Amino acid sequence: MSQYVSRLRSRPHGPFPGPARLRLPGGPRRPRRVAMLSVHTSPLHQPGTGDAGGMNVYIVELAKKLASINIEVEIFTRATTATLPPAVELAPGVLVRHVDAGPYEGLAKEELPAQLCAFTHGVMQAWAGHRPGYYDLVHSHYWLSGHVGWLAADRWRVPLVHAMHTMAKVKNAALAVGDTPEPPARVIGETQVVDAADRLIANTAEEADELIRHYDADPGKVAVVHPGVNLDRFRPTGGLGSATVAESRAAARSRLGLPQDAVIPLFAGRIQPLKAPDILLRAAAALLAEDPSLRSRLVVPVVGGPSGSGLAKPEGLQKLAARLGIADLVQFRPPVGQEQLADWYRAASVLVMPSYSESFGLVAIEAQACGTPVVAAAVGGLPVAVRDGVSGFLVAGHDPADYARALRRFVDDPSLAARMGADAAHHAQSFGWDTAAAATGDVYTAAMQERRRHLRSLHG
Amino acid sequence: MSQYVSRLRSRPHGPFPGPARLRLPGGPRRPRRVAMLSVHTSPLHQPGTGDAGGMNVYIVELAKKLASINIEVEIFTRATTATLPPAVELAPGVLVRHVDAGPYEGLAKEELPAQLCAFTHGVMQAWAGHRPGYYDLVHSHYWLSGHVGWLAADRWRVPLVHAMHTMAKVKNAALAVGDTPEPPARVIGETQVVDAADRLIANTAEEADELIRHYDADPGKVAVVHPGVNLDRFRPTGGLGSATVAESRAAARSRLGLPQDAVIPLFAGRIQPLKAPDILLRAAAALLAEDPSLRSRLVVPVVGGPSGSGLAKPEGLQKLAARLGIADLVQFRPPVGQEQLADWYRAASVLVMPSYSESFGLVAIEAQACGTPVVAAAVGGLPVAVRDGVSGFLVAGHDPADYARALRRFVDDPSLAARMGADAAHHAQSFGWDTAAAATGDVYTAAMQERRRHLRSLHG
Repeated sequence: MSQYVSRLRSRPHGPFPGPARLRLPGGPRRPRRVAMLSVHTSPLHQPGTGDAGGMNVYIVELAKKLASINIEVEIFTRATTATLPPAVELAPGVLVRHVDAGPYEGLAKEELPAQLCAFTHGVMQAWAGHRPGYYDLVHSHYWLSGHVGWLAADRWRVPLVHAMHTMAKVKNAALAVGDTPEPPARVIGETQVVDAADRLIANTAEEADELIRHYDADPGKVAVVHPGVNLDRFRPTGGLGSATVAESRAAARSRLGLPQDAVIPLFAGRIQPLKAPDILLRAAAALLAEDPSLRSRLVVPVVGGPSGSGLAKPEGLQKLAARLGIADLVQFRPPVGQEQLADWYRAASVLVMPSYSESFGLVAIEAQACGTPVVAAAVGGLPVAVRDGVSGFLVAGHDPADYARALRRFVDDPSLAARMGADAAHHAQSFGWDTAAAATGDVYTAAMQERRRHLRSLHG
Repeated sequence: MSQYVSRLRSRPHGPFPGPARLRLPGGPRRPRRVAMLSVHTSPLHQPGTGDAGGMNVYIVELAKKLASINIEVEIFTRATTATLPPAVELAPGVLVRHVDAGPYEGLAKEELPAQLCAFTHGVMQAWAGHRPGYYDLVHSHYWLSGHVGWLAADRWRVPLVHAMHTMAKVKNAALAVGDTPEPPARVIGETQVVDAADRLIANTAEEADELIRHYDADPGKVAVVHPGVNLDRFRPTGGLGSATVAESRAAARSRLGLPQDAVIPLFAGRIQPLKAPDILLRAAAALLAEDPSLRSRLVVPVVGGPSGSGLAKPEGLQKLAARLGIADLVQFRPPVGQEQLADWYRAASVLVMPSYSESFGLVAIEAQACGTPVVAAAVGGLPVAVRDGVSGFLVAGHDPADYARALRRFVDDPSLAARMGADAAHHAQSFGWDTAAAATGDVYTAAMQERRRHLRSLHG
């Protein structure tokens, strides 16, 4: 899991030995119970409804996996209906606590800052009666929860680990015309949490850099922990062997109406210069120039919308396809839901990511998890996401001829997609929530150890 | 001081004996040190600048007088410049603590809710290192401070006493066209503080009723403590004897260009039906009808603006004066500052308050403090504010003839104004901040006693 805690590795915090509950005198230990704060969105809500989105899935998946490695999690969230019980067991070792703070319905996110003291009071009520060390650590999500976490961690004398998820300064730097900027109160609030937290968990190296650049975060406090890929959703239908991967691909092709014998290099993602879908089109044109007979069995799907608002169609890319003489082979598809996206991954012979920049490469992991190898530029997190020669091929630079050469191997060897795809599916297993939870647990341990070292230094 | 704690009197909390620091085992005692919270306005700021207004004066005067009866006060306020020291001694026993919470400048009041956790953290930092019982009680002012007080009182296990000062629901009920209503977040926040506080201090019986009616406050928790009158500002120039009162009156008349030998019944206040200035005009007309020779030495000043917005002039009252044939005697003056208002009080022979409703009668106290007797309707707080036959005369009902009869006594006996005025000035001394602070101390004691009784009942 070294890639997950890259920033932490530079800190000399030693190994993390032994089972979770073992306490070595003075040695590192994991927390036994974490208070996780999610003020504005409940882990019990369906993603995609109201304020429930990616953060929701994140918290649920992380908490379950933390519990499975013996770190109990109690998630505090604001009660939004009168009928909610005070506490609900979401999974073994994961408790959701509903906190009364403001009216159950009709409270906009903008009105939540005025409810943070009330929420803090509710957290303290739930904690009252427990012994002082009941929670070993506070993990807050989004800046609103961070302010509650600040007070809770202070009162309980435990470390505060915070995840921003999104940042006002980053959003404001990329505003489209007509967008409402995030208010100064949020920027101030975020800055304070960055300052108050013992550790900040960034989803990507890019987010870590933003924390340091925009919010003056202490680099020693920032840890990168990639969120896990949902391996239940992104998987070959059937199993992980090469035969089942081939069957999964065939079934997906028939569901999407794609020819069974086609060579299908897929682009999935936003149509923007940094993602360089044009390189895939040029590589496809180069393949055809070498072997015109391919025309009857080459399909190039481009799944994804244009970046930014205002553009209805990726017209520049369509014009390029026409100029290259492959307009009939390129299928432009608008962005699709995750279920259908998984089918596009399964159906492809290979996913192509000629990106100029890629912080993590989530799409590469998802495609591999579906049993599809990846041809990717060797930039950002992609050399970690793709095992060169095993789960796909890494390409140095952005010459379309190099991408064409990599794609030709899938043309020349019709069984390569299934063989490499099976290896890719295995490789992707290490990018699940298990890994993310283990890395998060390591951040917890480091935060607790540093806190203890700090206390020791204060007391001589 | 019975009128100050009228609501409390119905609670069987017994007498409050002994000096402040004496602790009777299990008996009532006063707090030794109060944490006073004023997040959004500093007691060190000049009133009339920015957010500094009446609440500022209130806190400074109250704190000084509390300190003088051995209740130390530490006032927490948000630091608004970088150069402020962490703590400043405002007076012996009164410390102002500056809390870092958000940027020093440019933070609007609307952005303060997002700073309440930060402020709470700062309060806890200042408290850290002190023994658990360092503060005996929290007294918060305005709802923003109330939320901080909620958490502080909870953590320190001490009572929370809260003063609203203004209320969103009351403001919203009286909105003029075009006014922006107070936001729901404030209404919610206020409701929570009303619920969380051990005691609520209302400035007037009217405010107490509003707390109960609009915010569902427990009547047993609401205490009325009238703010003190500023006896340094409202006083006869010179001293409190009848001779100096006469001199003070003469000097004020010459400053205002009023004739020395005139009989001057003054109306001061908003020109609105409830205050009934028309009754004074009718009474003056009745006096003249009886004794036309008075015309040369009767002056009727009406100092104050119309109530509500939109009306530039009290035209209805001017028309009435014309109809009554006394337009030449009535002097309409726009509202004036407190210094000049004191001169109007001093210059008058008598202040006339024919009000239909009056929660406290602050104007009656101010005028008396300046050495001016009062003729007042026997409504609301006025029978307490005016000692009938000593510092003025109370009139039952609103018949102008009755007011004329009372005024005639000042016409018939030219020395009455000075004699009663001297008694009025003495009477008003009991309405200063000393009294308000003593009454506030009684509320503190009651809150502490009830808290102790509650804890005893919990532990058998």
